[in-house]
Amino acid sequence: MRSRATREQLDSVIRLLQGHGVDPKSSTLADITVLITEEVGTPDLAAVVENSPGVERVVIIPGAQRLTSRHFRADATEVTVGSEAGSAGGTVFGGTEFVVIAGPCAVESTTQMSAAADAVVAAGAVMLRGGAFKPRTSPYSFQGLGLAGLALLAEQRKRTGLPVVTEVVTPSDVESVAEESDMLQIGTRNMQNFDLLRAVGASGRPVLLKRGMSATIEEWLLAAEYLMHMGTRDVVLCERGIRSFDPSTRFTLDLSAVAEAKRLTHLPVIVDPSHSTGRPHLVAPMSLAAAACGADGLIIDVHTDAGHAMCDGAQALGAEQFSTLMGRLRPVVEAVGRTLSPPRSHSLAQV
Amino acid sequence: MRSRATREQLDSVIRLLQGHGVDPKSSTLADITVLITEEVGTPDLAAVVENSPGVERVVIIPGAQRLTSRHFRADATEVTVGSEAGSAGGTVFGGTEFVVIAGPCAVESTTQMSAAADAVVAAGAVMLRGGAFKPRTSPYSFQGLGLAGLALLAEQRKRTGLPVVTEVVTPSDVESVAEESDMLQIGTRNMQNFDLLRAVGASGRPVLLKRGMSATIEEWLLAAEYLMHMGTRDVVLCERGIRSFDPSTRFTLDLSAVAEAKRLTHLPVIVDPSHSTGRPHLVAPMSLAAAACGADGLIIDVHTDAGHAMCDGAQALGAEQFSTLMGRLRPVVEAVGRTLSPPRSHSLAQV
Amino acid sequence: MRSRATREQLDSVIRLLQGHGVDPKSSTLADITVLITEEVGTPDLAAVVENSPGVERVVIIPGAQRLTSRHFRADATEVTVGSEAGSAGGTVFGGTEFVVIAGPCAVESTTQMSAAADAVVAAGAVMLRGGAFKPRTSPYSFQGLGLAGLALLAEQRKRTGLPVVTEVVTPSDVESVAEESDMLQIGTRNMQNFDLLRAVGASGRPVLLKRGMSATIEEWLLAAEYLMHMGTRDVVLCERGIRSFDPSTRFTLDLSAVAEAKRLTHLPVIVDPSHSTGRPHLVAPMSLAAAACGADGLIIDVHTDAGHAMCDGAQALGAEQFSTLMGRLRPVVEAVGRTLSPPRSHSLAQV
Amino acid sequence: MRSRATREQLDSVIRLLQGHGVDPKSSTLADITVLITEEVGTPDLAAVVENSPGVERVVIIPGAQRLTSRHFRADATEVTVGSEAGSAGGTVFGGTEFVVIAGPCAVESTTQMSAAADAVVAAGAVMLRGGAFKPRTSPYSFQGLGLAGLALLAEQRKRTGLPVVTEVVTPSDVESVAEESDMLQIGTRNMQNFDLLRAVGASGRPVLLKRGMSATIEEWLLAAEYLMHMGTRDVVLCERGIRSFDPSTRFTLDLSAVAEAKRLTHLPVIVDPSHSTGRPHLVAPMSLAAAACGADGLIIDVHTDAGHAMCDGAQALGAEQFSTLMGRLRPVVEAVGRTLSPPRSHSLAQV
Repeated sequence: MRSRATREQLDSVIRLLQGHGVDPKSSTLADITVLITEEVGTPDLAAVVENSPGVERVVIIPGAQRLTSRHFRADATEVTVGSEAGSAGGTVFGGTEFVVIAGPCAVESTTQMSAAADAVVAAGAVMLRGGAFKPRTSPYSFQGLGLAGLALLAEQRKRTGLPVVTEVVTPSDVESVAEESDMLQIGTRNMQNFDLLRAVGASGRPVLLKRGMSATIEEWLLAAEYLMHMGTRDVVLCERGIRSFDPSTRFTLDLSAVAEAKRLTHLPVIVDPSHSTGRPHLVAPMSLAAAACGADGLIIDVHTDAGHAMCDGAQALGAEQFSTLMGRLRPVVEAVGRTLSPPRSHSLAQV
Repeated sequence: MRSRATREQLDSVIRLLQGHGVDPKSSTLADITVLITEEVGTPDLAAVVENSPGVERVVIIPGAQRLTSRHFRADATEVTVGSEAGSAGGTVFGGTEFVVIAGPCAVESTTQMSAAADAVVAAGAVMLRGGAFKPRTSPYSFQGLGLAGLALLAEQRKRTGLPVVTEVVTPSDVESVAEESDMLQIGTRNMQNFDLLRAVGASGRPVLLKRGMSATIEEWLLAAEYLMHMGTRDVVLCERGIRSFDPSTRFTLDLSAVAEAKRLTHLPVIVDPSHSTGRPHLVAPMSLAAAACGADGLIIDVHTDAGHAMCDGAQALGAEQFSTLMGRLRPVVEAVGRTLSPPRSHSLAQV
Repeated sequence: MRSRATREQLDSVIRLLQGHGVDPKSSTLADITVLITEEVGTPDLAAVVENSPGVERVVIIPGAQRLTSRHFRADATEVTVGSEAGSAGGTVFGGTEFVVIAGPCAVESTTQMSAAADAVVAAGAVMLRGGAFKPRTSPYSFQGLGLAGLALLAEQRKRTGLPVVTEVVTPSDVESVAEESDMLQIGTRNMQNFDLLRAVGASGRPVLLKRGMSATIEEWLLAAEYLMHMGTRDVVLCERGIRSFDPSTRFTLDLSAVAEAKRLTHLPVIVDPSHSTGRPHLVAPMSLAAAACGADGLIIDVHTDAGHAMCDGAQALGAEQFSTLMGRLRPVVEAVGRTLSPPRSHSLAQV
Repeated sequence: MRSRATREQLDSVIRLLQGHGVDPKSSTLADITVLITEEVGTPDLAAVVENSPGVERVVIIPGAQRLTSRHFRADATEVTVGSEAGSAGGTVFGGTEFVVIAGPCAVESTTQMSAAADAVVAAGAVMLRGGAFKPRTSPYSFQGLGLAGLALLAEQRKRTGLPVVTEVVTPSDVESVAEESDMLQIGTRNMQNFDLLRAVGASGRPVLLKRGMSATIEEWLLAAEYLMHMGTRDVVLCERGIRSFDPSTRFTLDLSAVAEAKRLTHLPVIVDPSHSTGRPHLVAPMSLAAAACGADGLIIDVHTDAGHAMCDGAQALGAEQFSTLMGRLRPVVEAVGRTLSPPRSHSLAQV
C-alpha cells in the first residue's frame, strides 16, 4: 500500500482479495503496509489489485509449480530427436554435444535440398532444417511449397538418415507436418499463437520454440509452459534476435537471454545466428559467441546457391562458408568443455 | 554499389538481376554506380543483392500496386459494419463520425454483459466489444468462454441493436465467429498469423486489425494487404501500443503512427487506449489525444465491476468513468470537425 | 526472499542491512519471507541486496521526500519565465494558458531570426526558441553560431519583448547563456549530463528539461530532481520522443508519458512535436494530440526558408503552416478548458 | 523522386541542391528519377531534400573520408596505453593479446583499492579501472570521491605498475584526470556530450569510448569521429549494453554490434559484461561470448567486498569469481587464436 493509503483503501483491497478466496497477511512499518499472500495463479487479480486506490505495487514471486522452471526440475533436460529415424540413435539437445542444425531457409527442389544436405552433412551438421510453410511479411513474397515441400524434406531425411526440423504455422497442419518430420518448429511470429502451441504440445513431437521478436524471457518461458502443460516434455528453446532501435542488423541477438534462460529453465537453449543478424558476415562470430556463452546448439541457414534462394538467401552461408565456420567452431566448443560432431567423409547416395 | 566496388562486382550484380528477369539501368558519378530497376515485387531478391559483394545499399520504392496504399486509392475508405444488424444502418468507420466501441475485455456472463452494454449504450458508444477467445500469456490465466461467450455476445447484439466486434484467434473458428458477430478482430499477437489473416480475409466480414506490439507501420500495412489480397475491402486498423523500454505503461501508445498510417493508407485507423496503457487513469487523456490527432475512433475496455473482471480488469473503466470520458471527448471531437453519437436516454429491454 | 531461501541466507541479508544502519522488520507466510524497511535513499544498497543469495526481489517505494513528486507538493507548480523581459509579465507554464514556443532550430542570422520572429509572433506564439549551441551527431555538421548566435537571439528578445529559451550544452557556458536568455534548455543528449544539470540548477534560471531519448519517466524525473536539489524551483519538462524500432518517424512521441508525468509530478510538461517526429506533416496532428492529452504547451520548429535551414530544416514548419496549425490548435485547447494567446495584428519594429 | 513526382518538383529539388553548390546528375527509368551527387558532408541538406515535395527517399553513402572508417584505414589500429607508466611497455588494444581491464566501479579507499588491485593482478588483469567521478541517475546516490578518488587510483597505478582508466564527466576535469590516469573513459551517458568529446580528443590521451545506451553503431562511430577529428588517434570502443524492452537484464548486451563495428572501423572494440547485464551470474558467460566473437578485450567490475560497495556492487565479481572467470576465459581466447596474460604469482608491495 502507498504511504498515504487510507484505512478504507486497505480494507477495500483486503475485501477484494477475500472475495477471490485469498486471505492476505498484513505487516506495517512506519506508514507502509505490506500484504502477503500465497500465490494464487491469477495474474488478472494482481493487475486489478495494482490499480486499486492506495496500492503502490503488486509483486509476484513465480512459484515452483511451473513445469519449465528449475524450481520444478533442477537438472538439465535432455531432448532426443529422431531416435527412430537415424542410425545413431537420434540427436540429443542439452547434453555434452553441441548440436548444429543446418539447411536452407525454404525447401525449393530436390536438387537444392540434396546439394544443401550434402554440404551440411559433410561439414558435421547433425540435423537438417528446411521450411515448407513460410510466414512472410508480404503476401507477394514466396510462401513456401507447403505439402510438396514436406515431401522433399522427408526425402532428404531418408537419404541422409538425419532428423529434420520444419516449421508448422497453423493447427490444422500439425498432424501432417508431424508425420514427415522429427521436430516441429514454432516460429517467432507464432510464439504467442496459443492455439498452435496447444496443438503442437498435444502432438507428442519434440518442439523447437523460437523466441518472439519482442518477447521477454518470461513470456518465452510461458509459451514453453503452454507446450509442457499439454503434455510435451521435449521442448528446445531458440533465441533468434529481438527488435531494437539499431538498423545495422535485422534483429539484435540477445545472448544474455540464452545464459539467463539456461539459469531459469531446465530446457535446452539454442541460437539462430542467421535470422537474428540477417547478415552472412555476422553468422560466424555470433555462432562462436553462442557456443562460448553456454548455448546447447545452433540452427544455421545454408544454401549452396544463395544468389537464387527463394527466401532469405541474403543471410545464408554457402557450403564453403559453412564448412569454414564449423572448423572455427570446434575449438571454441571444446574450450567450454563440450563436443562437436566430426565432418563426415563418405558421400551420400543420390535420390 | 560501394565507391570501391570492382567492375567484376558490378557485372556480377547485373548478371544476378538479369538471372531473375530484371534488366537494370546503370548510372555512374565519380566512383559511385547506381543501378535502377522497375519494382519486381521480390523482397528476397533485394536482400540477396544487398548482401552481394560491392553493394552498398538497396532502396525499395513501394509501388502503386498495393491495395492498402493511397497510391492505389487516394480517397478515404469508409467501412460500414453491421448494416443488417442495427436499425441505424450500421456503424461507419472513416467518415464524419468518430466511432466509439466499448465493452468488457472478456465476455463472462449475461449479467456482466447486460450491465456493460447498458452503461456503454447510455454513454454513446455505437458498437460493442467483448472477447470470447482470449489469447493469454500464461496457460494458467482465464482463456475466455469460447463458443458460450459468443452466444452471450450475440445476445447483447440482438438486445441492443448494436454491431459487435470480437476476436478470432485461429482459422478453424472464423466461420462460427463470423456468424455471431459483425466484425472480426485480429489481435496484436496474431497480426502476423498469416493463415488466420487469409481465413479472415476470405470470410467477407469487416476486420479490425490490431497492430503487432513490435510491428513497424510497414509490417502493419502488409498484414492489411494480406486481408485485402484475399478479397476483403473492409479493414479498419487499430493502434494499440508498442513495446518500449519504459515500464511506466504496459505498452507505449504510438499516436504518430496513427497520423502516419492515415497518410499512407486509405483505410480507417482507430486507437485502443486501454490495452496500450494498461492503466485506467491514462485512458481518458489518450482517448482525447487520439481524437485530436485524426484517429477515426476508439475501442475502450468498460466493465461495471472491474474488481471482479476475469481479464484485464485492471485497465477497464467503470460505467461512470466511461460516461465522464465521453463527456470530455465530445468537445475535442467537435474541435477537429467531427461528430460523436449522443448518449441515449431510453432504457434497453432486459434479456 | 525466495521460497527456497535458507535461514542462513535470510540472516546474511539482515546482517548486510544492519551493517548499513537499516533494521528490517520481517514477515513470513508459507515459505516466503518479506523484509520491510523504511526507505534509506541508497539505490546501491538495494541492488546489492537484490543480488544476494536467496533474495527474490527488492521493491523500492519512492518516498515523499522527492522535490519533484506530487507527494511533496500536491498542487501544480506554475513556472513564470521572463517576467522582467516582457511587458505582459512573463510567460506562465502550468497555468490556464497553453504556451506555444516557436522559432528556428538554429540561430543563423538577423534576417532569418527576424523573419521567424515576425511569423511566430503574428500567429500567437508567446515565446521564442533558437539554438546557438547545437549538439550534432556528426562533427561535420553545422554546430551553431555560439556566442554570436546568443547575441542574435537577444536581439529578437529585445525587439519582440518575448522571452527566449536556448540550449546550453556545457557547464562553462551556463553563465553567458543565462545572461542572454530567459530560460535554459537541457537537450535530450544531456539529460544525464549531471555536471551540466548541477550548473544549470545553480544558476537560478528557469529550465526546460528535455527527456532523454531513452530515458524512463523515472530517470527523467530524477534529472529534474538534480535541478531542484540545486535550488531551482522553475523546471518545465519536455517530452520529445523516444527511441523505438520503427524507422517511420525519427523518434516515437510518447504522449502517455506526458499524462503519466503530470500525475507523478507537480511540474509543467510540454511537448516537442518537431524533433520527435522529424516530419513536418506530423507536427500538426501531434500538436493537437498534445494539447488534448493535458500537456501545458508546445515547442515548435519554425523557419521561414526551411529549404535553406542550417539545421533540422527538414522538420520545420513554414510561416503559413505554423499559422494554420495555430488556427487548428485553438479549438482543441479550448475544448480541454484552456486558453491560447491570440495572433497579434500589429507589426514588430525592425532591428 | 516518387513515381508521381511532377517535373516542377524535380526542378525544385535540383534548384535546391544547386543553391547549396551541389550539381546533381539525374537518371530516369520508367517513372522514377534518381538524382546522384557526390557526398557533400551536410546531413542537414539531405534531410531538407528528403522532406521536399516529390522526393521518395535520400540515401547517403558514407564516404571514405571518415577517420574511423576501414575505407580510410584498412588495417586494425593498435592502441597502446601506459607505455610510460609500466615496465612492460604498456597495454596494447587491437593486437594479438586479449586485454582484460578490471577493478571496482567506484574508488572508495586505499584498503578497497589495494584489495581489488591485488585480486585482479593475481588473476591476470593487465589494466586497472576505478571511478572517481560517477554519473548517477539519482542526486541522492554516491557520486564518487572526485579528486581524492583520483589520488587513490594513482596510488595503485604506481604500486602495481599497471595503467589505469577512469571516467571523466565534464570538460573542466579533463586536464586533472589526464594527469592521474593513462586512459580517459567517456561513459555511456556522455557519448554525445560533444564538448566533452572535444576536450578529451584534444587532450592527447587514449580514450575508452562507451557506446550510448541507445546509440546506433553509426552514432557511436560518429562520436569516435569527434575524438579523432580533434587529433586523437588512440580510441578504443566499448560495447556496454543497449536499452530494450526486457527487464531481465539491466541492459541488452549487443555482441553483434561488436562484430559489426570491427568490420566498419579499424579501431579496437572491447566489451563491458558487468554494466550491460547488471547481474554477476551473467558476467562470465558474456565474457566468454565476447572473446569468441572477436572483441579485443573486456572491462570488468571487481570488488573484494561487493556487499559493501558504494556503487553498483550488485554486479561486481568477487576475487575468487574473477579468478575463476579468467581461468575459463583462457581456453576460449586461445581457441580464437589470441593470447591472455598469465596470472601473476608474486605479491605486490603494500602502499
